[in-house]
Amino acid sequence: MNKERLAVCPGSFDPITVGHTDIIRRAAAMFDRLIVVVMLNDKKTCTFSVKDRMEMIASAVKGIPNVEVDEYGGLLADYTREKGACAIVKGLRAMSDFEYEFQMALTNKKLNPDVETIFLTTSAENMYVSSSVVRQVAAMGGDIKDFVPESIYDKICKDLRKR
Amino acid sequence: MNKERLAVCPGSFDPITVGHTDIIRRAAAMFDRLIVVVMLNDKKTCTFSVKDRMEMIASAVKGIPNVEVDEYGGLLADYTREKGACAIVKGLRAMSDFEYEFQMALTNKKLNPDVETIFLTTSAENMYVSSSVVRQVAAMGGDIKDFVPESIYDKICKDLRKR
Amino acid sequence: MNKERLAVCPGSFDPITVGHTDIIRRAAAMFDRLIVVVMLNDKKTCTFSVKDRMEMIASAVKGIPNVEVDEYGGLLADYTREKGACAIVKGLRAMSDFEYEFQMALTNKKLNPDVETIFLTTSAENMYVSSSVVRQVAAMGGDIKDFVPESIYDKICKDLRKR
Amino acid sequence: MNKERLAVCPGSFDPITVGHTDIIRRAAAMFDRLIVVVMLNDKKTCTFSVKDRMEMIASAVKGIPNVEVDEYGGLLADYTREKGACAIVKGLRAMSDFEYEFQMALTNKKLNPDVETIFLTTSAENMYVSSSVVRQVAAMGGDIKDFVPESIYDKICKDLRKR
Amino acid sequence: MNKERLAVCPGSFDPITVGHTDIIRRAAAMFDRLIVVVMLNDKKTCTFSVKDRMEMIASAVKGIPNVEVDEYGGLLADYTREKGACAIVKGLRAMSDFEYEFQMALTNKKLNPDVETIFLTTSAENMYVSSSVVRQVAAMGGDIKDFVPESIYDKICKDLRKR
Amino acid sequence: MNKERLAVCPGSFDPITVGHTDIIRRAAAMFDRLIVVVMLNDKKTCTFSVKDRMEMIASAVKGIPNVEVDEYGGLLADYTREKGACAIVKGLRAMSDFEYEFQMALTNKKLNPDVETIFLTTSAENMYVSSSVVRQVAAMGGDIKDFVPESIYDKICKDLRKR
Repeated sequence: MNKERLAVCPGSFDPITVGHTDIIRRAAAMFDRLIVVVMLNDKKTCTFSVKDRMEMIASAVKGIPNVEVDEYGGLLADYTREKGACAIVKGLRAMSDFEYEFQMALTNKKLNPDVETIFLTTSAENMYVSSSVVRQVAAMGGDIKDFVPESIYDKICKDLRKR
Repeated sequence: MNKERLAVCPGSFDPITVGHTDIIRRAAAMFDRLIVVVMLNDKKTCTFSVKDRMEMIASAVKGIPNVEVDEYGGLLADYTREKGACAIVKGLRAMSDFEYEFQMALTNKKLNPDVETIFLTTSAENMYVSSSVVRQVAAMGGDIKDFVPESIYDKICKDLRKR
Repeated sequence: MNKERLAVCPGSFDPITVGHTDIIRRAAAMFDRLIVVVMLNDKKTCTFSVKDRMEMIASAVKGIPNVEVDEYGGLLADYTREKGACAIVKGLRAMSDFEYEFQMALTNKKLNPDVETIFLTTSAENMYVSSSVVRQVAAMGGDIKDFVPESIYDKICKDLRKR
Repeated sequence: MNKERLAVCPGSFDPITVGHTDIIRRAAAMFDRLIVVVMLNDKKTCTFSVKDRMEMIASAVKGIPNVEVDEYGGLLADYTREKGACAIVKGLRAMSDFEYEFQMALTNKKLNPDVETIFLTTSAENMYVSSSVVRQVAAMGGDIKDFVPESIYDKICKDLRKR
Repeated sequence: MNKERLAVCPGSFDPITVGHTDIIRRAAAMFDRLIVVVMLNDKKTCTFSVKDRMEMIASAVKGIPNVEVDEYGGLLADYTREKGACAIVKGLRAMSDFEYEFQMALTNKKLNPDVETIFLTTSAENMYVSSSVVRQVAAMGGDIKDFVPESIYDKICKDLRKR
Repeated sequence: MNKERLAVCPGSFDPITVGHTDIIRRAAAMFDRLIVVVMLNDKKTCTFSVKDRMEMIASAVKGIPNVEVDEYGGLLADYTREKGACAIVKGLRAMSDFEYEFQMALTNKKLNPDVETIFLTTSAENMYVSSSVVRQVAAMGGDIKDFVPESIYDKICKDLRKR
């Protein structure tokens, strides 16, 4: 019998995009359990509340059986230790992501040697999708249909138009 | 009971370095089985024979229980399909690795949608180690002690000095 | 008879630099008309007013017959559609520009498939010039003579010293 | 009446891919005439003959009215001068392309100041396609259907399997 | 008799890290005198006061005889001119540093042609260390022992926990 | 009295370009002595003989008093140890240079901890100049006047046309 393996997929998810859900789906196929965790960061001002972000993630990943949603306000290294995770999963879209994520991966390895950061490449068709593009396009009245999961499209549009 | 998960770690391993063994050890901790596979490529002239490369890998990974060594002469996408692997593991040292590996990952995803390429970051102390650095330094009489697994150091030195 | 071709050169131009005017001059030689458009962005705090920025652009491009100056507050994809532009022109100085612009180009292609983003390389002698360098150097009393068009040098110095 | 504008799209095209045809189609929409030119380079060993490469290009671009195919054995800067081209068109897939192309663009600008190199971004779905990937995949018996224009698929497969 | 050569090592040092002290030590071995200078920048909000930052630097470099500590509020190009420095020393951790520093180096060369910017590579084991990582990790209760000079560890911890 | 400081500037110099001479001149101003050393590498086929390359360097640096020319066939780390050099000087043109040079710098630091690799940025106007561009342009009949030192222009043209 093989040991259960848990991976963690951290982020701001402000809001979750089709790029995120693609990474989540692919990561969930490689591990026994996957926790999508909204990392709280006092320094960063988010557009959506933590509650909204968690609900949107839950709605977007509903069909994937071994995925859970969580939030955390401390160090990712501590969170992975508490949960006993063996991997942190990150999607890479481009080189500029890569350098920052590389530095974070080395830092996290230092702070918790028992967890590995693994990178997946974003699917080609999602390479230009990011939460900030979603917010910008929506704020200026553009259509974000291709950028966000269908199940949360109406909610996001309504919320982002209001601002 | 969880399903057995198999990952594949492909490369030339000409010769295997301490960077490779570090990646193999860390990947082995995340999956139930890991196959280190020497990819044969008619276009590329290698310094060590396939037999030598496989023996050096076997010697370097001896202590890790769930690792096997193999060779393959076709497409990596086909190999992973035959084996039923869920992941291809690659170590990234730097950005220049990244772009090429990114393209290969997208190509392999196209050719076999059931396998993911996952990237691990090289540990800081191995960042400057590569098979070609090993070959160059050894060829000019430099000491490669810090660059290759201890168990194969003597063999590699002897072989590379001869040329 | 060939169809008239219109290109658009968007930016903040806070303020316009010799790098910008070089790109504008070269783009103007490839298309029948070129509109330099100041994109308004609520999120970004600019040092110069929109009116000032447009006047400085107008002054800097005075000698080029087929260039016009405009401002726009919505999505670039919508602007290009309204104008019937076939191309968005961007200057690239370095890799860090490239990744962001690449993502924007794919996003704009998605939002308006009829317009292409084309990139020109900055001339070697302008590679280190950017609006933010101009603002920083001027703010600390350095001479920006080599960085901005001659016709607006006095105005910019006076304005930036005041702050 | 506007002046006729000619652009040139140079490359090895060994063989032409769906990435190339996408760039050619989009460039042809921005200029009055577009010449796709196979650059001959004594140093580089090609898999397909010049004649074969030109025929495959001609077949792949048949539906685009303002595109011509040519070959040239000298400096690109001289070719563009002879033809009176205002632009050299290159597709960019990734950063690694970018640096080399950037250097070539500055060199060509030095050798012929009347021509601009313009870069288009490869469409997301073609980002992993290159002539060398086509050759590698085909050589190992993989299916290249998604990578090359339909009209030349049979010919390429037959030729590449033979080797 | 050889002329005395002075180099300058500028930065925010908010706070100084083991990466900084490594670069300072190595630079000090190449020049007769080295001034570590805290650059004051109105735009940037620092966590530590200038006085605190200078004291921490002084404490961290105490053992190196030819190093001095200073502060400056103007252009780096002017500071190096006043001091008669022949070199500005910067440590590079990664590509993302590189582009920004490259642009700054060309700007400084323009503003003061008598000073060269020279780059040293960060030692492998410090590659993931930066002032902002120190601040983030400490703010969330993580241990920064491996990231900052031993002599200032207690002070930094106390100060960062307070916030 | 200050200790004499020696730096080494290694390369293939096949042939020396205006980019090289610019780096050499700037490095010579920072150190007491600078040795330009042609590194011999069996694996790399050069266009010019070692003797020709050394003569061209000598001719190009004639006016700089503290520069010497040498050749070496072993490891750079050993050469710098023998000479007692404190620095290896390299010019960086672009990111692609950077990664390779970064790896080499870390390797050399490992092999000889007493020598630092320092990087200078290429002047903007030389950013597109490289030995391989010189060879390519000359081989196809282009004018390399702006790319090589004036004193060796005639010799290089004659030699490269012959091939």
